[in-house]
Amino acid sequence: MTILERRDTNAVAHLTMNAPERLNALSDEMLAALQSALAEIAQDNTVRAVVLSGTGKAFCAGHDLKQMTAGRQNEDEGKAYFKDLFTRCATMMQSIQKLPQPVIAQVHGIATAAGCQLVATCDMAVAAEGTRFGVNGVNIGLFCSTPMVALSRNIGRKHAMEMLTTGQFITAERAEALGLINRVVPEADLATTTTALAETVASKLGLAVKIGKEAFYEQLQKPLAEAYDYTGDVMVENMLWRETEAGIAAFLNKETPTWDQ
Amino acid sequence: MTILERRDTNAVAHLTMNAPERLNALSDEMLAALQSALAEIAQDNTVRAVVLSGTGKAFCAGHDLKQMTAGRQNEDEGKAYFKDLFTRCATMMQSIQKLPQPVIAQVHGIATAAGCQLVATCDMAVAAEGTRFGVNGVNIGLFCSTPMVALSRNIGRKHAMEMLTTGQFITAERAEALGLINRVVPEADLATTTTALAETVASKLGLAVKIGKEAFYEQLQKPLAEAYDYTGDVMVENMLWRETEAGIAAFLNKETPTWDQ
Amino acid sequence: MTILERRDTNAVAHLTMNAPERLNALSDEMLAALQSALAEIAQDNTVRAVVLSGTGKAFCAGHDLKQMTAGRQNEDEGKAYFKDLFTRCATMMQSIQKLPQPVIAQVHGIATAAGCQLVATCDMAVAAEGTRFGVNGVNIGLFCSTPMVALSRNIGRKHAMEMLTTGQFITAERAEALGLINRVVPEADLATTTTALAETVASKLGLAVKIGKEAFYEQLQKPLAEAYDYTGDVMVENMLWRETEAGIAAFLNKETPTWDQ
Repeated sequence: MTILERRDTNAVAHLTMNAPERLNALSDEMLAALQSALAEIAQDNTVRAVVLSGTGKAFCAGHDLKQMTAGRQNEDEGKAYFKDLFTRCATMMQSIQKLPQPVIAQVHGIATAAGCQLVATCDMAVAAEGTRFGVNGVNIGLFCSTPMVALSRNIGRKHAMEMLTTGQFITAERAEALGLINRVVPEADLATTTTALAETVASKLGLAVKIGKEAFYEQLQKPLAEAYDYTGDVMVENMLWRETEAGIAAFLNKETPTWDQ
Repeated sequence: MTILERRDTNAVAHLTMNAPERLNALSDEMLAALQSALAEIAQDNTVRAVVLSGTGKAFCAGHDLKQMTAGRQNEDEGKAYFKDLFTRCATMMQSIQKLPQPVIAQVHGIATAAGCQLVATCDMAVAAEGTRFGVNGVNIGLFCSTPMVALSRNIGRKHAMEMLTTGQFITAERAEALGLINRVVPEADLATTTTALAETVASKLGLAVKIGKEAFYEQLQKPLAEAYDYTGDVMVENMLWRETEAGIAAFLNKETPTWDQ
Repeated sequence: MTILERRDTNAVAHLTMNAPERLNALSDEMLAALQSALAEIAQDNTVRAVVLSGTGKAFCAGHDLKQMTAGRQNEDEGKAYFKDLFTRCATMMQSIQKLPQPVIAQVHGIATAAGCQLVATCDMAVAAEGTRFGVNGVNIGLFCSTPMVALSRNIGRKHAMEMLTTGQFITAERAEALGLINRVVPEADLATTTTALAETVASKLGLAVKIGKEAFYEQLQKPLAEAYDYTGDVMVENMLWRETEAGIAAFLNKETPTWDQ
């Protein structure tokens, strides 16, 4: 078993973080494996959705504190290493958002600090009952400043501020109510539900999902008029595809569209 | 009956989309009729709120796919027509937001694709139990890129992404919980509830609602300090009106303010 | 008793607005007292969280309308006074956000207009059952344009628009569901719950909370990539502190971190 397993089924790439003894911490090795897997999937036209999960007791417990502490032995007390680490981590997170295919987090156990950031960063998330979410670095004197970038783009600011300044965990049900995840299911149904969601996405025209996901995050950062100018052009491009012409024709003929993709 | 009916009562303009055989699709004719009605209402000081509804089985089913398909017969395979269509549609949507008077969607049946965008674009929305909402273009290979501009400014990003990439519908209750609409009522109460809400708004000082609505969307796109500078000036202007002076005086005398407007 | 009481306990500064006969209106005197208290607390390293509450029947009923009306006697009909007033009020609101320490509103009775803005502006808020929230200036012809800056950064736009244009109140339970406050408790538990929340925050490393709160609002206004660059630097700085090194070491040794602060 490697630190990150990949298994493809029905156009869905299942990525499984596999460092259970470290609660799937985002160590240098894990970050590199995720970055590398994302780079491969970005180029892989046979994949139309991704599920990200973890083995063991936790989805992901954030940064690898032992490794970070070891970094303090450097002459600069770790400054260069930390800078590089947070850059690599932020790059990986942004690569999830830039990936053409939607990424769904399949979450169980705990998702804390950068692990909670990972959930917030994925395009969608399903969690098992009993999962706990936290940005609890403040408990050890390290405010979760990078995790909050993703968290605060998912949930309201008062709730984000409470999680960040108290370090307290929230339940999966609360995470669902706040908008951090899409839904909560019994642990026994977690893999099935997440896979079904991913396969639904994967059954769509991959090119349309790709152009749409890219446009989604792009337009969110634009003023309204610019967002419309930009997405209007995306719609024109989308309309001119043969596959879309066929899809619309099928619909008008009350048939179900199918695509070679 | 024309494609868009207008009936004014108690300072509320009721606009009713009336192409039930096409599920009130946003055809060239419907877009033109809406644009024209909005232009008239913008100049009409007797109107202080607008209710937008549809006849037949659906509030609005989005773009007119037959008309769009016909556009493909052009030499450029429809490119210029599509570009123009999405521009006209985005202009109409933005005209709702720019309209001095608040616009309330009265939604029943289904609101899909650009029909869902229309709901998201209105300042407020009330829906009947049983209404279904979706941005389901992805099911026929056409990602709802322009509808998502409005949708993603109303609901959290994980839920928006799920609707966009799965094409699945949500219920009115779910739409309410996510923030897409203000409330759900039994179908029998839909018109009464929406009208009551509109007439409450119309009972206020129209000039104050106008200056406030404009400032609402404007300040949302500004950084905090600029938003305060800008709205501070709006407040000063508002305070200097005779009607506001009278309204505050009435309040301090424990009377109910009334205005000639 | 002065117009604003301050009592410090367990590293929490309790600020109590004390003009119950005016429902703790944000008069010139109240604004000045708040501004002055915030300036003092900003420099006070013994304070690590703030609770803001009010005596009497209301948390805060907004601007002082009698004082504003008196301002109309000036030669310019109050223009310069109003301009200055809204500037002072916006400065005070932004000082809450700029304060190094988190500020928690302890809300009861009513929070209307600029009083509702005050709740929205605080980093967190706890309310007693029965509290009512409104931005109801529109009822007297004065649209709540400055309050909406804070309100619309806390709750969804359709709900904000409804509150602003109808002037209707919402319950504490609704305020919680919309994200305006963190939680609702029985009135008898209000002070205890808010104090416990504040003391939890105050038990953390103050410097970490300070750097984190500042980064929270700063990054919210940045595009994603810039937000990550900026917070990455904040994390590096935070990691290099001796206290954080000690906190992480304690955690790795399965001990509870403590700090001299």
